[in-house]
Amino acid sequence: MAPRPTITTPAAGPTQDDALAANRAFYHAFSTRDFAAMEMLWAQNAPIMCIHPGWPPLADRVSVLSSLRDIMRNPETPKAFGRSEKAFIFGITAVVICEEVLEGGVLAATNIFVNEGGAWRMVHHQASSIAAPIHELPLPRNVLH
Amino acid sequence: MAPRPTITTPAAGPTQDDALAANRAFYHAFSTRDFAAMEMLWAQNAPIMCIHPGWPPLADRVSVLSSLRDIMRNPETPKAFGRSEKAFIFGITAVVICEEVLEGGVLAATNIFVNEGGAWRMVHHQASSIAAPIHELPLPRNVLH
Repeated sequence: MAPRPTITTPAAGPTQDDALAANRAFYHAFSTRDFAAMEMLWAQNAPIMCIHPGWPPLADRVSVLSSLRDIMRNPETPKAFGRSEKAFIFGITAVVICEEVLEGGVLAATNIFVNEGGAWRMVHHQASSIAAPIHELPLPRNVLH
Repeated sequence: MAPRPTITTPAAGPTQDDALAANRAFYHAFSTRDFAAMEMLWAQNAPIMCIHPGWPPLADRVSVLSSLRDIMRNPETPKAFGRSEKAFIFGITAVVICEEVLEGGVLAATNIFVNEGGAWRMVHHQASSIAAPIHELPLPRNVLH
């Protein structure tokens, strides 16, 4: 019997479901403090960037990965998982938006992936506080009425 | 003399500089309260989404545009402009990260554009507070040393 092919992604490229799986893998690596897995999740060739909650943008590989390593090493860093995830594909790019649930709060997050070698690899992560109680926000009209 | 072509973008698609120009156009429309220009900046065919500071993600056209209209109509909404902008192109997608300077503060922003008809059209905007003074942040190692 011929060996099964090792390429598991279709020729058309990774899917929306693959983007959601890559998004889950990001939070799993973060929560289990698996920095080797975290590093593997990020693009190898494309430029990468990151905006942590409260931070200015980081736009080089060393800053992004070392900031993640330091945050993951900090014993006060909570675990996190995504919920209400939505994935959008634009050519070789996938954008996932979600709520990031932490012990003690919820953030709103954008995670961007590019197709590298048939897999979604992260190029950007931004998370920001959902700060105000919902009734204090200037809600869009269609929510008010 | 033959009329000049009206298509001003190269056949290879809009450039990094075009992405920076689209980013500036976003803040110009926002600051001048030009909602017609704002609406034109967003993608017509691709799905759009938005995460305002302190808000959960919005992921449908009506919510994104009506939230922007309401925020732009609010007389307490400050003007904003981008600085330290960096543009990255991934296929038909451009990602611009920048600092968003407002009266009274600075936010960190991600703006994502897709190539629609040879022009960069916005598909996502996220802005988040740069909240803590820089010395209180768990800085990446390469900044500390």
